[in-house]
Amino acid sequence: MQHGEIGVTEIGLSAGHLDPSDWEDFRVEARRMLEASIDQLQQVAERPWKEVPEAVKQGYGVQASGQSAAEMVTRITDEVLPYHGGNIHPRFWGWVQGTGLASDLIAGMAGSVVNANLGGRDHGANYMEHAVIDWTRDKMGMPEGSSGVLVAGTSQATVIAFQAARVRVMPDVRKTGQGAARLIAYAGDGIHNATRKALELLGIGFENLRLVPLIKGQMDLQALQAQIAQDRADGAQPFLIVGMAGSVDLGTYDDLEGLADVAEAEDLWLHVDGAFGAWTRIAEAPWRGLSDGIGRANSIALDFHKWMYVGYDCGLVLIADEAAHRAAFAARPSYLEAAERGLAGGDPWFCDYGIDLSRGNRALKVWTALEMYGEAALGAAISDNCRLAALMAQEVEASADMRLAAPVVSNVCVFTARADLTAQAQSVLNSEIVQSMQETGEAVFSTTRVNGVVMLRAAITNHRSREADIRAALAAVARLAAG
Amino acid sequence: MQHGEIGVTEIGLSAGHLDPSDWEDFRVEARRMLEASIDQLQQVAERPWKEVPEAVKQGYGVQASGQSAAEMVTRITDEVLPYHGGNIHPRFWGWVQGTGLASDLIAGMAGSVVNANLGGRDHGANYMEHAVIDWTRDKMGMPEGSSGVLVAGTSQATVIAFQAARVRVMPDVRKTGQGAARLIAYAGDGIHNATRKALELLGIGFENLRLVPLIKGQMDLQALQAQIAQDRADGAQPFLIVGMAGSVDLGTYDDLEGLADVAEAEDLWLHVDGAFGAWTRIAEAPWRGLSDGIGRANSIALDFHKWMYVGYDCGLVLIADEAAHRAAFAARPSYLEAAERGLAGGDPWFCDYGIDLSRGNRALKVWTALEMYGEAALGAAISDNCRLAALMAQEVEASADMRLAAPVVSNVCVFTARADLTAQAQSVLNSEIVQSMQETGEAVFSTTRVNGVVMLRAAITNHRSREADIRAALAAVARLAAG
Repeated sequence: MQHGEIGVTEIGLSAGHLDPSDWEDFRVEARRMLEASIDQLQQVAERPWKEVPEAVKQGYGVQASGQSAAEMVTRITDEVLPYHGGNIHPRFWGWVQGTGLASDLIAGMAGSVVNANLGGRDHGANYMEHAVIDWTRDKMGMPEGSSGVLVAGTSQATVIAFQAARVRVMPDVRKTGQGAARLIAYAGDGIHNATRKALELLGIGFENLRLVPLIKGQMDLQALQAQIAQDRADGAQPFLIVGMAGSVDLGTYDDLEGLADVAEAEDLWLHVDGAFGAWTRIAEAPWRGLSDGIGRANSIALDFHKWMYVGYDCGLVLIADEAAHRAAFAARPSYLEAAERGLAGGDPWFCDYGIDLSRGNRALKVWTALEMYGEAALGAAISDNCRLAALMAQEVEASADMRLAAPVVSNVCVFTARADLTAQAQSVLNSEIVQSMQETGEAVFSTTRVNGVVMLRAAITNHRSREADIRAALAAVARLAAG
Repeated sequence: MQHGEIGVTEIGLSAGHLDPSDWEDFRVEARRMLEASIDQLQQVAERPWKEVPEAVKQGYGVQASGQSAAEMVTRITDEVLPYHGGNIHPRFWGWVQGTGLASDLIAGMAGSVVNANLGGRDHGANYMEHAVIDWTRDKMGMPEGSSGVLVAGTSQATVIAFQAARVRVMPDVRKTGQGAARLIAYAGDGIHNATRKALELLGIGFENLRLVPLIKGQMDLQALQAQIAQDRADGAQPFLIVGMAGSVDLGTYDDLEGLADVAEAEDLWLHVDGAFGAWTRIAEAPWRGLSDGIGRANSIALDFHKWMYVGYDCGLVLIADEAAHRAAFAARPSYLEAAERGLAGGDPWFCDYGIDLSRGNRALKVWTALEMYGEAALGAAISDNCRLAALMAQEVEASADMRLAAPVVSNVCVFTARADLTAQAQSVLNSEIVQSMQETGEAVFSTTRVNGVVMLRAAITNHRSREADIRAALAAVARLAAG
């Protein structure tokens, strides 16, 4: 269709804009939403996870018929607020999910009306993102000049880091593709799935990930070096070591100093998966020591929405060599050219540091949390989570029938409710206990398999949990196990 | 470090949790943030983009020292709200950026206290995301049973779609990597950079993207077929055609029916980049017809934060064959095993449909917008944006010195302020005009190069723009061009 088809006489808009026609009415309804939202925060202990009723699920069906703000606030209050994922509750320790913060509500309101796109250009949110990245870089002990970009989470941060690692050894890969080169990555057995998925997406293939055996939860450095030598002898090209700072199953940490030494000696890129565990950097001793050496990595992936408790979603990739980071992603065509002045200024643009060209404002909620709570309080909450995991472990070991899968190192406690049963019976019982406690709202554990047994797993990244929550949850486990 | 190092006598938490110690005080401050946020929305016409002062930039530096909610609300009101990216203003037409909606504020409050992680599990937000995807699928005319996942934007949606297309022709690629296979993709010259970046990330390489010549803004189908035949004859493996629904430079549309015919005949995957342009599906005639045939694609990438005006960020990838979608991304290790009941239910999990395992709640703001405004009002706003682009074109053509780069097809108008000057003089002048108007706050255009000339470009995805805004902006251009 050509422009000429629409003549000037036809101009005349069919509708008004979409802003409220009655601002005072909108204020009244927005205030109702705010009070209901604060009620949710204040009463969160009385609002555990519960199943979404079928009628509510049906009600989510999009009608797109147009409703008043008053109707929408009522619907959201009745149909959305109650059916959260449970992670806001003080007895939620399933998977590794953060709790959220009251500061998210403050940041959420402002963020909605700023509506920033942090792909680039010259505006406040981009400067704030740089400030958040730089603070985190400093806490991790990475060198000044390291670069970074906020992303949805560690999965995407891992993709970005691995692509930078690949471009380092194959400078033409963006142009030519990987071709017949066989790049090899190394990680400890038990590495998070994000590493495998990233290698799949990049076209490297998961069979080129070597799972190195662990010794006491840490990658065996001699086995690592032997494997690297073997792969080189076979004509493959080692390019990447992935260290764990907080393993997903047991919360263990690789010897990051040792890995950094190997990476230097072998001229390989060291990436650290620090999704939650990187944050022991701001905890007290002895937990802080777990992540010693993390600042020597070429890249770190971590989340703010786990152990910094900030609302979903927000992760970060840090890359020590900004040139390597840009070499992997920078590319701007003519319609995105930068300018010296005006809105098109503000170099560098974050779209040159990752996948996304359109990027929401993750920086504001992180910044608000850091400024409002401060490093000391956030670090104390992290240390306290480790204390609670240690308490849970002690209670488990002191019980008649429960047994730990492994010593608790950080904030993850994995155990079976009845070590006296067969492996299969334990799996059935532990699964049943976890599901029952979710349904009653008593507490949320998730499960994982250790040596073929499904066990209860608590990953405590919850600033609302107290000692009484741990004791009550274990009492419930004991009751159901006896059941 | 071993668990035994932390004895039970050392248990005793070092700090309280991070929730407000005085809830009434928190309510008072949150209410201040709400009123300031609504003020911003209500007064947006008087709040154009302005440069961030150096002192404000410095103030963003993270101190992490801990401040009261009152201090934070004051800082955000003074230091964050004023320094937005300009896209909320009625005379902003730079790049392709949506305006945001008042409904985002309602959804933003609720979303902050629900703090959902939509990677998986059984809770309300996941059902809502399914509802949003299904509504969009229906509007696009894709078959029932098509799958999708909300992402940051079209860039990431493109990566997901291309990986599904690759897995279709190389079922083992996740395991083995791409190896020596030479996969070839096809797109019209002028395709958005997201296509090139996705091919780079996947390890396919941008030199394996064929840019097919355009005829009147549409891919030349004969040239396309000739190129496919040539590549096959050369031993390469064609796998993907990328159609444009709304080109970034001029807002043109490929002949999507014709592309679908070619893709079927050649057994290739048809992906459509519909970042903004897909939404003419809910506009009036004649604009609706531009995207005819889009429902025949194997995949579509589109954004809600552009031409549906929803707050940043939210894009969507739709894939017609759910099995192909899952084949590209599904993978869940033991710590993410699903359960029949409880929180670990709710199959399918969205983490099996894309890159991210942790995923924020994008569905709520889209759902709130669809339900609150309705399809009719949103479609009317889209049609009106096309009317305004046509009006701008007519005014440009009626002027003495301005000249269109090309006819206006949809909502994008590209022109030079002084067609009587040399190409170089036009580039200098047009750039200067765009920067000056940004600085004065009169209007925001961006620039693009057409035949080597930097021109003014307006992409109207702004529900706040009226006829008077267009006329005032062009008057300012004329004044500056005469200057």
